Amino acid sequence: MTHPLVSVPRVLETCLYAPNLVEAGRFYEEVLGLAPFAHDEGRHIFYRVGQGVFLLFDPMGTSVSNGSIPAHGTNGPGHVAFAVAGEELEPVRGRLEARGVVIDADVVWPGGGRSIYLRDPAGNSVELTTPSIWGLAD
Amino acid sequence: MTHPLVSVPRVLETCLYAPNLVEAGRFYEEVLGLAPFAHDEGRHIFYRVGQGVFLLFDPMGTSVSNGSIPAHGTNGPGHVAFAVAGEELEPVRGRLEARGVVIDADVVWPGGGRSIYLRDPAGNSVELTTPSIWGLAD
Repeated sequence: MTHPLVSVPRVLETCLYAPNLVEAGRFYEEVLGLAPFAHDEGRHIFYRVGQGVFLLFDPMGTSVSNGSIPAHGTNGPGHVAFAVAGEELEPVRGRLEARGVVIDADVVWPGGGRSIYLRDPAGNSVELTTPSIWGLAD
Repeated sequence: MTHPLVSVPRVLETCLYAPNLVEAGRFYEEVLGLAPFAHDEGRHIFYRVGQGVFLLFDPMGTSVSNGSIPAHGTNGPGHVAFAVAGEELEPVRGRLEARGVVIDADVVWPGGGRSIYLRDPAGNSVELTTPSIWGLAD
């Protein structure tokens, strides 16, 4: 195949999995400030982030197809990164630590930019990072 | 906590895992038209999509920390959705089928919009969908 069959302008749905949705949801809501717009107990909590959505699924609830939507669901720690403006990262770290949130790692990248890493209650690696690490604007 | 500790304007990194990176990469490149900008054999292939990146990882390569970046890595089928403009979805389906790509499901949503679902070679559920399903513009 020399020409792609489809052109995709952006990611619309970014997903992570958490067997205990309520506990994980509390992290995304209280620490990251995401506001849920849908919650189906035992299956999912959905959040809007920018021009897309962040979907938190209970893998037990999605690993069997419901008849129309194909089954999916992972085990083990996934990864997501959310953008934080460059000048915000240091005060964000301070506020997180002041509230007792454990910082898993703090990486200053050789090419510019910085990332701090947290763990959600399900063990997923959650990165807060300056878009400059990918050469992107805040 | 009544106020969030951080405000995240968008997702920057969306990740999936594939034990056979080369085979999975071929799917994202030839079918979805993504262009890799980094390939570390046995660890990752990175793609730019819109104002973010889509990261394909070999979970064997990321499940042990390299000393600075926290370990992550999942087993089982994850999920991602890429945006496709509304008027493009029908011709996209036709081109995919003409090339022998299996359509896992085709869902017309009650609230408007449509999704088609593929499987990448690692078994991940890959959705091509109109942003209108989330009330978003193309």
